[in-house]
Amino acid sequence: MYKQFVAILAISISSTQVQAMDWQALPEVAPAPADNPTTEAKVELGKMLFMDPRLSSTGTVSCNSCHNIMEGGDDSRNNSMGVHGQRGGRSAPTVWNSAFHSVQFWDGRADSLEDQAKGPITNPIEMGMKDHDHAMMILRNIPDYAPYFEKAFGKDSVNIDNAAKAIAAFERTLITPNSPYDRFVKGDKKALTTQQQKGMNKFAELGCVACHSGAAFNGPKNEIGTGFYAKFPTFADSDYVAKYKLADDKGRQDVTGEAQHVNMFRVPTLRNITDTAPYFHNGSVKTLDEAVRVMAKTQLNQDLAEQDTQDIVAFLEALTGEYPEIMMPRLPVPSGYSVIAD
Amino acid sequence: MYKQFVAILAISISSTQVQAMDWQALPEVAPAPADNPTTEAKVELGKMLFMDPRLSSTGTVSCNSCHNIMEGGDDSRNNSMGVHGQRGGRSAPTVWNSAFHSVQFWDGRADSLEDQAKGPITNPIEMGMKDHDHAMMILRNIPDYAPYFEKAFGKDSVNIDNAAKAIAAFERTLITPNSPYDRFVKGDKKALTTQQQKGMNKFAELGCVACHSGAAFNGPKNEIGTGFYAKFPTFADSDYVAKYKLADDKGRQDVTGEAQHVNMFRVPTLRNITDTAPYFHNGSVKTLDEAVRVMAKTQLNQDLAEQDTQDIVAFLEALTGEYPEIMMPRLPVPSGYSVIAD
Repeated sequence: MYKQFVAILAISISSTQVQAMDWQALPEVAPAPADNPTTEAKVELGKMLFMDPRLSSTGTVSCNSCHNIMEGGDDSRNNSMGVHGQRGGRSAPTVWNSAFHSVQFWDGRADSLEDQAKGPITNPIEMGMKDHDHAMMILRNIPDYAPYFEKAFGKDSVNIDNAAKAIAAFERTLITPNSPYDRFVKGDKKALTTQQQKGMNKFAELGCVACHSGAAFNGPKNEIGTGFYAKFPTFADSDYVAKYKLADDKGRQDVTGEAQHVNMFRVPTLRNITDTAPYFHNGSVKTLDEAVRVMAKTQLNQDLAEQDTQDIVAFLEALTGEYPEIMMPRLPVPSGYSVIAD
Repeated sequence: MYKQFVAILAISISSTQVQAMDWQALPEVAPAPADNPTTEAKVELGKMLFMDPRLSSTGTVSCNSCHNIMEGGDDSRNNSMGVHGQRGGRSAPTVWNSAFHSVQFWDGRADSLEDQAKGPITNPIEMGMKDHDHAMMILRNIPDYAPYFEKAFGKDSVNIDNAAKAIAAFERTLITPNSPYDRFVKGDKKALTTQQQKGMNKFAELGCVACHSGAAFNGPKNEIGTGFYAKFPTFADSDYVAKYKLADDKGRQDVTGEAQHVNMFRVPTLRNITDTAPYFHNGSVKTLDEAVRVMAKTQLNQDLAEQDTQDIVAFLEALTGEYPEIMMPRLPVPSGYSVIAD
């Protein structure tokens, strides 16, 4: 605990010193890995796959079910519901701007968007497919999918790696630039209200930027696969910890088995945070103002004055960007039969 | 049974006589009732409501969940799945071209699209809201919905009747014109293959047009609220009846309580029938060719030659029209909290 505390403070101080010059606008294009450059054909296919509920065992759950791109990229729920109404233990993170994370999932168990995309399809309480082969058999039984794969990846290319690449390529287009904050840091000094500017300074002063730095407010720009994690809660004796069961989930320790990783989570983006309630890995906190109080206390050992809380909330509201317009995909349907057996 | 049989035959003969002149193309605009003229503002709001899963108790089921407009307007399932994975007893009818039905639901229990839209929201195994007031409280707790209601219906207009009107207005835009069949009847004689034309004639000759007449192949153009029903199965001693449990569902009798309505169902449209497997009110028949065999036997007491079955299937394939491109709606999200309590 003490070591962790010192580490957080150290980052905090260095980040705070540079805060005046380190505010970054969100890039309008996300980086793509060398082995999966973003192309129109992949994005088109990926959008179809992302929206297609037939990738679940019941035909009722798509990627979009829990990461609804018509809303904040999540599902408005404390924990998500998969096939047969089963619930996961964690709250769905937003897919918007997920391209700017250097690892995926709350516990960072996937290095890349490509790796992440494969997980839920075969998770028994999410999309519930028995294995990836079965999921690909479903796609092959929808013959009109093949031309889209061919266009994106060449002949005979319906396989899980390509499906995941296409979904990842689509997700890299899910970026929300031009928030009031972005316009402000690009020079439009009227883009933020006075209260929002006060909140912005308070956000930096308190040390929130120790973790929530960078263009996506999710930490330094690491290499893909190199996660940026924080212990949550850090100050575990806060009353909030019991109230919101914040320490129950072991976080990254469940992935690595290492004691030092207990309660470590990937630092989430704060982009569009207004649109992703309820909050935290377990969705236990219902409102943004309470989430701010909890973070100040459990991470920085600060009891915020109510005005400071409101100012920070006002600043966070300025991080909500412009969602691009997206045409609904037309999902190929096999002629005269269904691929859903259940 | 005998009376029913005679009635079907009588219709069959008269319809067959006029078949050469009675093939109709699908209108590109659906009629709207006098008290709910279609407007852009209603369609925009209706699309949002149609796609919004927060109208269900769990926040996971929208109208679109079972009537997926990215596909054939249904869910590819034999029976639908509502909140908590519960299943209904019937297969979701397609929402595409539903504006051309004169009653809604398999059993015609709603007169209009407006009436229909209210049903699933409070059905405990579909969207599971305890009542319409609760559903409207949810919408009022999403403040950014109000301006859309105001634009469509005037001030303080967030109520269930207006929500249903908006959804119905949107559904009236879900029309799929310009199928090969439509182009054929408008004069493009190359729009159908020779096999499809053979199937078209066989379809008329056999008497399928007795029930599946008109532009939507769902019967005569009745006043809204005046259903066009058929008994299914009519020839109840067919082996198919037991095999596919076709007589288990009492159909319209469950609505009216009248013995004469046992196994009566609204005649469904055949538009885009390729895209709505599995088939029939209970989704018991997996493929379109088998559905054709079953209909010929149970409704017309005909054992089709395999070639005739294939020709009719080819004709039915020509009824699949052009789905319009639809922009995804942006669903309003309340700032910093969620409306889903579950």
